[in-house]
Parts: sequence; C-alpha cells; structure tokens
Amino acid sequence: MSTIVYIATSLDGYIARKDGNLDWLMEIPNPGKSDFGFAAFLNRIDGIIMGRKTFEAVLSFHEWPYFKPVFVLSSTLKKVPDNLRDKAEIVTGKLKTILTSLKDRGCNNLYIDGGQTIRSFLKQDLIDEFIITKVPVILGSGIPLFTDMPLEIKFAHIETEIFNNTLVKSRYVRIE
Amino acid sequence: MSTIVYIATSLDGYIARKDGNLDWLMEIPNPGKSDFGFAAFLNRIDGIIMGRKTFEAVLSFHEWPYFKPVFVLSSTLKKVPDNLRDKAEIVTGKLKTILTSLKDRGCNNLYIDGGQTIRSFLKQDLIDEFIITKVPVILGSGIPLFTDMPLEIKFAHIETEIFNNTLVKSRYVRIE
Repeated sequence: MSTIVYIATSLDGYIARKDGNLDWLMEIPNPGKSDFGFAAFLNRIDGIIMGRKTFEAVLSFHEWPYFKPVFVLSSTLKKVPDNLRDKAEIVTGKLKTILTSLKDRGCNNLYIDGGQTIRSFLKQDLIDEFIITKVPVILGSGIPLFTDMPLEIKFAHIETEIFNNTLVKSRYVRIE
Repeated sequence: MSTIVYIATSLDGYIARKDGNLDWLMEIPNPGKSDFGFAAFLNRIDGIIMGRKTFEAVLSFHEWPYFKPVFVLSSTLKKVPDNLRDKAEIVTGKLKTILTSLKDRGCNNLYIDGGQTIRSFLKQDLIDEFIITKVPVILGSGIPLFTDMPLEIKFAHIETEIFNNTLVKSRYVRIE
C-alpha cells in the first residue's frame, strides 16, 4: 500500500495563502492548458483521503473533479451531500485503522490531500511518497506544507519534470 | 549588479539542524566527489557577503575554501584574523549602502550566504537570484531558509539540474 501526497508549494513552502487562496497557483501561464500530469496521477491511485476543509473547498467548484472515490476525514461531518453519495464518504477514527480498512477494500494507492490531513499522516510517519511541484514565487506567508515534528524521514529522488520552464515537479519515495 | 543565494535545503526547507549541524548534507552519497557545480558558481561571482556566524563556522574548516573576496557582515567583529587580511574584511552599515559601495569596487555578482544574512537581504527585497539544491530528506526541525515576511516576490525558473539522481538544483531569477 502507498500513501501519496501530490501538491504544489511556493519557494518558501506554502501550499496556500493564509486565507486558503490559491490565486498565485492559478496565475501560472499555461498556454497549452496542461494538467501538468494530474489526470495521469489520478489514474494511478485508487482513492483520495482529504480533510473536511479541502472537501468543502472542492464542493464549491462548479463540477466534482475526481473520478476516483473520495474519503473525507472528519469527526464532525456525518454525511456527504446526496448527489455525491456514490463518489464520497466520511471516514473517521485512527489513521492507521482507516488505511487498513481501505486497503481491505482494494485501495492500494491513496492520494492524501489537504494541509492538515497531510501533516497528520506525516506526524505518524504514514506518507510513502511526495510529488511536489515548486512554483517560482516567494509568498512571504501562508499555510505551510511542513511544520516542526520530532521525526526525520529519508526519501529517494525518483524523477523531476519541468513544465513550461516554470514548474519543477519532483517525485520522492520514502526509503524504508 | 546581482545578489545570489546558493544554498541546499531539506524538503521541509531547513538549511541546517537547530544547532547548525549539516550532517544530513554531508551524508549524501557522492561517489564521483562532485562539487555539484560550486566551483563554477564561485567563478561566476566577484565576492561573498556572509554573516559573522557563517564566517566563524568557515574559520573552523581546515582550509580557507574561497578564492573570491569575502565580506563579513558584522557590527560586533572589528577585524579578521591576520592570515586572512587579504581574503576577508568586515563590512557594516545599511545593506543597500554596502551593496552600492561593493559595486563601486567592481563586485557585480555577489554571493549572499548564511541564514540570517540571506533573510536580512530578502526582507529588504535585495535578492536577485536563488540557486536552491533540494536534499531528499524531511528533517522535522532546523533553521529555515525562509521565514514570514510582508513581501511577495516573483521569480522566473531558469534551469534545473539533477545530481546523482538525488539532488535537485534549481536556479531562479527575480522578475523585475
């Protein structure tokens, strides 16, 4: 089983402005309307675990963007909107237990999304892979991808791709 | 004139452990004894501005590693050791004034080194270029390259090089 973070950060390591705004990410010139490999990544995974905040942000989009099952990590949310009943479900409890139960259901590659969710998994050393896209801007402040934790984790660099001579996307896999 | 930061960071953005230790950087497998482009970079610059702490760390090395003039930013240090009198000097005062005076002396490309020094220049928007080498480890804690500041700076990605399929070195130039 593999848990994978797929995310963009500023040069100073922020995944969003303090209020969650992603304008700096949306502003990237993209004449060829590339998805920078996102659909190929979604093809590789069996499901997505995200936090409640990310889920609520996605709900505000015009269209539901995922063609893989979404598991919303929440102890407060009780159910998902009716029109998403076959696309998303609530999961709760210990992260390790959730992962085991999803593995039993055939989810071998899980995309872990949302700042708080990523940090919760990371603090328990439950992230196997990072795919980080560096955006060439220093934001000065925002929501960081990483925060202090009493844990050191070594990774192997697998590959780096450059998009539009602007974005640097690197893939790292945890060394067991 | 160009001010350039050339530095390595962990995936979580640290340039050293909390006590300044760089063991995680020294541990990188380097069978070919590559300098990962450092000598070529030193050839490109006309001088190095570093803080007192970095200078004192360099003094503890067996050999003086630089073949370009070093300017030590310090208001407390009054002179450099006698054996370095033709290699290093103390500079003090406003950063902009220091840069103007060094430019008048023929320093067009300046390497800015040391965490605190880099952050001081950055807060005054006085960094033109970043060459950042990403090391595939999450340290969990340490001295960060970037800290919060009320300033957003856009960069252009110039090039990325991969060394030993481990280090990802990206060069970014400030967009005027």
